Amino acid sequence: MRRIDYPEPLQRLVAQLKRMPGIGPRSAERIALWLVGTGRQEASRGREIAETMLENAAKVRPCDRCGFFTIATPCEICRDESRADGPLCVVEQATDIIPLERTGVFKGRYHALGGRLAPLDHVGPEDLTIDRLLERVKEEGATEIILALGADVEGEATAQYLAGLLREFPELNVTRIAQGLPAGGGLESADELTLSRAMTGRVLLSK
Amino acid sequence: MRRIDYPEPLQRLVAQLKRMPGIGPRSAERIALWLVGTGRQEASRGREIAETMLENAAKVRPCDRCGFFTIATPCEICRDESRADGPLCVVEQATDIIPLERTGVFKGRYHALGGRLAPLDHVGPEDLTIDRLLERVKEEGATEIILALGADVEGEATAQYLAGLLREFPELNVTRIAQGLPAGGGLESADELTLSRAMTGRVLLSK
Repeated sequence: MRRIDYPEPLQRLVAQLKRMPGIGPRSAERIALWLVGTGRQEASRGREIAETMLENAAKVRPCDRCGFFTIATPCEICRDESRADGPLCVVEQATDIIPLERTGVFKGRYHALGGRLAPLDHVGPEDLTIDRLLERVKEEGATEIILALGADVEGEATAQYLAGLLREFPELNVTRIAQGLPAGGGLESADELTLSRAMTGRVLLSK
Repeated sequence: MRRIDYPEPLQRLVAQLKRMPGIGPRSAERIALWLVGTGRQEASRGREIAETMLENAAKVRPCDRCGFFTIATPCEICRDESRADGPLCVVEQATDIIPLERTGVFKGRYHALGGRLAPLDHVGPEDLTIDRLLERVKEEGATEIILALGADVEGEATAQYLAGLLREFPELNVTRIAQGLPAGGGLESADELTLSRAMTGRVLLSK
């Protein structure tokens, strides 16, 4: 008697789904079986999602200018003439743009680096879109570069590195988004580093 | 200034991924962005998975006889002549077959009902492959039906219903897999119902 497993294409699908972020072996199996489906109305689930994936693979790509997801380059943000030309917000990943957009606070354009400096992971300046950023600063006449990078060691190192390079533009303000207590967080739930940064970055309310 | 969101095909992909089991809105977005990819080597991730999905949608289907996932019907299990003809193991879903196979304990064939009786969800006997089960009992000369259904209210009700129908075959033994303490579980971690079932189903060791 042969020990049975799923048909080969289904095993391959499980293996591929397992590589998706946040998906473990059990979820991968559960999703694969759901996609294949056994019920009547459900037969087309896998097909529909697959077709959307292919459509995305064919159509959606990073904007040549800022790196945001787009169908046409330059993207909707880069094309939007109602946006301010002065401030340019530098983020690590294109995926960081949407949360910033949702705040509604920033009215300028973005630049996604495609990652952050991480020597231990062999990510150096040449792996990021830093050259493109310097070109844009020259071409687009930015007046402020806002570094909206992660508040961790690599984010910090990348911010310092960029600030160093940007000193070549003496007119340019280089700023960094604030670090401090998260909204709704009390002092008792903040870690030491957050609290020390909140303290160092304190803001004058009145004098 | 227009508030920006992802391009339409990407938004559609997020919405479709959100329907997958165990995937919330945040994971769906994370997976969609990973599938679209922005890195160099990563451009084909979505395409590869999509192609495997389409291959599965085209090739993999339920075995006409037992309901297990297969490319050719009857499936590998139903075709395997080294399997015992006597015992037939009834499960709720085709997905329950693989965990049972992995135990290596059962050497017979399976029958997937395609669900269990759940009047509140409008699942009645006609929605399950019960007619096919009765035909198989007649045709294949089963000597024992092992009900390997869930240890919950619906599983219980389905088992009782099937046991009633199967009384039409007086020679047939109808059994049900044991309920009791899970392996590695101490008495202190078992709930009352598990413990009462473990007690009721106690097994004679020696006398």
